[in-house]
Amino acid sequence: MRLVTNEFAPLKQVSVKDGFWSRYQEIAREKIIPFQWRAINDDVPGIEPSHAIRNFRIAAGLEEGDFGGLVFQDSDVAKWLEAVAYRLSTHPDPELEKTADGVIDLIAQAQEEDGYLDTFFQIAEPDRKFTNLNECHELYCAGHMTEAAVAYYEATGKDKLLNVMRRCVDLIDRTIGPEEGKLHGYPGHPELELALCRLYRATGEERYLKLCAYMINERGTEPFFFEEELKKRGYTAFWGGGRQEHVDKEYNQAHKPLKKQTEAIGHSVRAGYLYTGAADLAAETGDGELARAMETLWNNVVNRQMYITGAVGSQVHGEAFSFDYHLPNDTVYGETCAAISMVFFASRMLRMDSDRKYADVMERLLYNGTISGMALDGQHFFYTNPLAMWEEATKRAGVTRHIRSKRPGWFGCACCPPNLARMITSLGGYVYSSSDDTAYVHLYVGSDAELDVGGQTVKLSQTGNYPWDGRISFKPGAGKYRLALRIPGWARTFSVTVNGAKVSPGLEKGYAVLDGVWEDGDEVILDLPMPVEFVEANPLLRADNGRVAIMRGPVVYCLESADNGEDLDALQVVCADGFRAEEDGTLFPGMVKLVGPALRRKPWNTDALYRRADCAELEECEITAIPYAFWDNREDTREMIVWIRK
Amino acid sequence: MRLVTNEFAPLKQVSVKDGFWSRYQEIAREKIIPFQWRAINDDVPGIEPSHAIRNFRIAAGLEEGDFGGLVFQDSDVAKWLEAVAYRLSTHPDPELEKTADGVIDLIAQAQEEDGYLDTFFQIAEPDRKFTNLNECHELYCAGHMTEAAVAYYEATGKDKLLNVMRRCVDLIDRTIGPEEGKLHGYPGHPELELALCRLYRATGEERYLKLCAYMINERGTEPFFFEEELKKRGYTAFWGGGRQEHVDKEYNQAHKPLKKQTEAIGHSVRAGYLYTGAADLAAETGDGELARAMETLWNNVVNRQMYITGAVGSQVHGEAFSFDYHLPNDTVYGETCAAISMVFFASRMLRMDSDRKYADVMERLLYNGTISGMALDGQHFFYTNPLAMWEEATKRAGVTRHIRSKRPGWFGCACCPPNLARMITSLGGYVYSSSDDTAYVHLYVGSDAELDVGGQTVKLSQTGNYPWDGRISFKPGAGKYRLALRIPGWARTFSVTVNGAKVSPGLEKGYAVLDGVWEDGDEVILDLPMPVEFVEANPLLRADNGRVAIMRGPVVYCLESADNGEDLDALQVVCADGFRAEEDGTLFPGMVKLVGPALRRKPWNTDALYRRADCAELEECEITAIPYAFWDNREDTREMIVWIRK
Repeated sequence: MRLVTNEFAPLKQVSVKDGFWSRYQEIAREKIIPFQWRAINDDVPGIEPSHAIRNFRIAAGLEEGDFGGLVFQDSDVAKWLEAVAYRLSTHPDPELEKTADGVIDLIAQAQEEDGYLDTFFQIAEPDRKFTNLNECHELYCAGHMTEAAVAYYEATGKDKLLNVMRRCVDLIDRTIGPEEGKLHGYPGHPELELALCRLYRATGEERYLKLCAYMINERGTEPFFFEEELKKRGYTAFWGGGRQEHVDKEYNQAHKPLKKQTEAIGHSVRAGYLYTGAADLAAETGDGELARAMETLWNNVVNRQMYITGAVGSQVHGEAFSFDYHLPNDTVYGETCAAISMVFFASRMLRMDSDRKYADVMERLLYNGTISGMALDGQHFFYTNPLAMWEEATKRAGVTRHIRSKRPGWFGCACCPPNLARMITSLGGYVYSSSDDTAYVHLYVGSDAELDVGGQTVKLSQTGNYPWDGRISFKPGAGKYRLALRIPGWARTFSVTVNGAKVSPGLEKGYAVLDGVWEDGDEVILDLPMPVEFVEANPLLRADNGRVAIMRGPVVYCLESADNGEDLDALQVVCADGFRAEEDGTLFPGMVKLVGPALRRKPWNTDALYRRADCAELEECEITAIPYAFWDNREDTREMIVWIRK
Repeated sequence: MRLVTNEFAPLKQVSVKDGFWSRYQEIAREKIIPFQWRAINDDVPGIEPSHAIRNFRIAAGLEEGDFGGLVFQDSDVAKWLEAVAYRLSTHPDPELEKTADGVIDLIAQAQEEDGYLDTFFQIAEPDRKFTNLNECHELYCAGHMTEAAVAYYEATGKDKLLNVMRRCVDLIDRTIGPEEGKLHGYPGHPELELALCRLYRATGEERYLKLCAYMINERGTEPFFFEEELKKRGYTAFWGGGRQEHVDKEYNQAHKPLKKQTEAIGHSVRAGYLYTGAADLAAETGDGELARAMETLWNNVVNRQMYITGAVGSQVHGEAFSFDYHLPNDTVYGETCAAISMVFFASRMLRMDSDRKYADVMERLLYNGTISGMALDGQHFFYTNPLAMWEEATKRAGVTRHIRSKRPGWFGCACCPPNLARMITSLGGYVYSSSDDTAYVHLYVGSDAELDVGGQTVKLSQTGNYPWDGRISFKPGAGKYRLALRIPGWARTFSVTVNGAKVSPGLEKGYAVLDGVWEDGDEVILDLPMPVEFVEANPLLRADNGRVAIMRGPVVYCLESADNGEDLDALQVVCADGFRAEEDGTLFPGMVKLVGPALRRKPWNTDALYRRADCAELEECEITAIPYAFWDNREDTREMIVWIRK
């Protein structure tokens, strides 16, 4: 029995018209998609050629040459196609579609007779296909291209790429599985798992679900496939090239069966994709044990290893999780892609259980730790998302050398920018879901939608000025159904009116449920007051003891040196009450900044490093906090902090 | 004109009888020296054989075999001999001296006809002598053995090793220098420079000073010797073995002339030895420009890059300094050897200028960041000395993986233990100095000494219970001279009595100067009240904002989980007044621990990571602080912090 309790409204049926997100979607359309197109076509002077399209042309026999780029270069083309597909879902664009069709034709030409498709192996290592699942990303690339194929099919109805990827996956299915003679393997970098679930939903073909289940359940069992594979290869390592004795199986969550894992570990993007695929699988197959394992891992991530911005992956070593409550703010990795993968994971958990705890985290991610990866010009990107940045330390201290003080432009390993593009363009698909009798609103994103509530088609629209204002107006279309509005965990209070009359809806797992027979023209207004709040961390989270983060609504704020001078740790705040919210559209239309009182340690009139503490002097000052996601959009980015001393 | 304003009383003339240091000296005699003897003779089951003595036997033709150990393995023998020499200076021990004489005979046998002595090159690379000064430690080993030779000569009057090292240095002098055909080089790892100054003082031979001056002044000039040498070698690297295009010249302070350097940079032990040698050279030659450069670097280290414990080297990357005010407490390197090198540097600066600023730092180092490197059993050693330690993070987070939660036993690269041994055994040599008319007391170490004050031999003794008690009694021997007692920077007040009568001595650069004609039987009592103090860091030192360290006298205290439970950052202190000093000899005879009130954030009754800050609750508790140097001498070492939230 499937474990799906509510189904998201398909992207095609949600038209986003939102002060905040429409702008991001325009950035994706105007900047990221065209730029990435030029990048994968080696058409951007000054950046390392991507070779991504050229690799397909070579594999297709249209051009001579060597493979270029990284072993997972194909995925750049896939992510571009996927973002284009989402864009086309809601904003038809014949020219863009024509370009995409051309790429799809090329991909089809590059595919081999038996369905094989991976330009690295086709061009560079034709004799070594499927010999290094651990390191070589064949299944990862297939996963991304499968996601693109499903998205493009759902957007345009065209099935050419879908059929290409079905043939490709069929080959993988003939190659990997429990039967003798097949590889008892699974992806080194998870991604295909979640793609297989999508392919299953798009085609109804059970085989894909079964392959996914095999990969998820085989992972981490003994004898360890990656060790066996290494032995078979003669202990050769792909990265670095030398001899390798052992595989770091924790790095890619292959150290024990996923159902036995209770702690998020290893490379955080791999973890996020794996958990997403596993949650998907559990939902589709009704594997309750797997679903419970995913809830355990969810709780571990969210309650032990997630930054207040939603960032995950607290260390550069392995771009990985470290351990419970170890969340350093300055040496963090916090890869943009990892935060995005957590949006996917949240959506899959939410589909099984419409509990606000999932949507709250999704919201935390969307407004903070994901979009912080992109400058507001849409052309500069962070891979790492620190919660404290001291520019000189990023340049001169080994421990923070992976942190950038300024977002660099697009570069060689372009995983994060296109991942952001696909998240932003597909955002409408996370706003609403429905069950047999209930229309859920998970996100407060201005939009018009059509939902299927137990067979009846229901129109539902919302308008507002979120996340800057907590008052949101809903127009539920005619019908008899329950309207469930998420009351965010950050809200101290809320109020709801129906056609102007105050109502007191019951709360179900954090959703205010309004049961009724709706008529066209009805209006529901949800009001979520948004005072400035100081937030503290669990005392076990050692890095943040004695500090607060400033939030307003779902938005995490930060202090930048551009507003507050240097040495931000010399500042301390006392009370949130003195803070006022001020609209300031300089950085972003409608943006609200927070201004309030603070104390600053006075500079010393001695050159000493240490002195008796009884002479401490503080001076009053005013500080300005801006949304964390918008940091580093001005010239001066010498310092930034999220957690402020109290 | 020499820049020496005061000269330390030779070690032979200072007999240490001190509650604190005599115990450390006994640990050195009973544990470190015998253990190291067994270690360098490959006589300790369970640890990697050192091969150090065996290498000399092979080089001497007494045994067949390959070179074993690291390229600087010879220096272990040198440091052992040096520590033995210091021990013999004050505590004759015929059996130990016989053993040392045997080692010296072996070293003499190993030396080649032309004076060459470095068993690595003699055994393993006889054709590559002096081809890789940057990486291969030939001159470093020669430096350590020269120090041993001088120390042994001064201790025993025996000049066999001294002559061996004179021949060795003479060969280096024929090999390196400004003349055409010589190498225009200098040590990759400084150490020989300071040894040459000692050799000069022991022998009166100007040539050694000239060679030192050449090495110091040539360093960092263009064309860069290490680059030229690399080119000549065909771009081969010793460490790692691959091709190397460039030399990281900042790593060993060879990026620009030392006189132009204003900021401590690179590997911190290299820096400490280099600065020590340069200060020595400046003092002996009267090079005022060099002396000023060393004062600039001293000020940079002490006022910008030194932890409150005296530790230096804030990063594991290159075991190096990072930059001004970047002093993270948990990811620090703080190598024991680097702290020891700063004691040497301080002593050389103090010799040029009897300003308490140098002796204060020496004291800070001696009671805190140096001896923290050794367990009180004398058999376990820290190479890294963090100021905050969370055991789980040392095991599971890449950023702190270089930190040990427990001192390990002796191991392969045994630089720190024998370095501690030589510092501890030579401690008496840093207590007193004298000028023409003044006897200086720099350290409050119980001892009897004979000083040469302007030609008259003056007896001087002190007794007390420092660092636990600030009352020290002095017995100045008969004579007319000024007695200068350091008033530590940590002392708020002080009082002095002479034969029971209160006096008000003038202060000269932080020394209370008592001018008089002393008679045998006179007693001077210095009283330095030692309240418990909270110390704060400069606001520019970002890591310590909002925190205090607890000190009493020169001793920096810390909190350990053994006394205070886990999650030490959940604690905060309010005021030093509530703290009391309690004698507790469990860990160390006479040790004073500090007990006082604190507040602890209450554990949350929710599993969440974050919540609104207005519900913060604190509970009162009592905390116990122990001297930082003594941390990790009990079973439970899950956590330790020096800087406590206030």
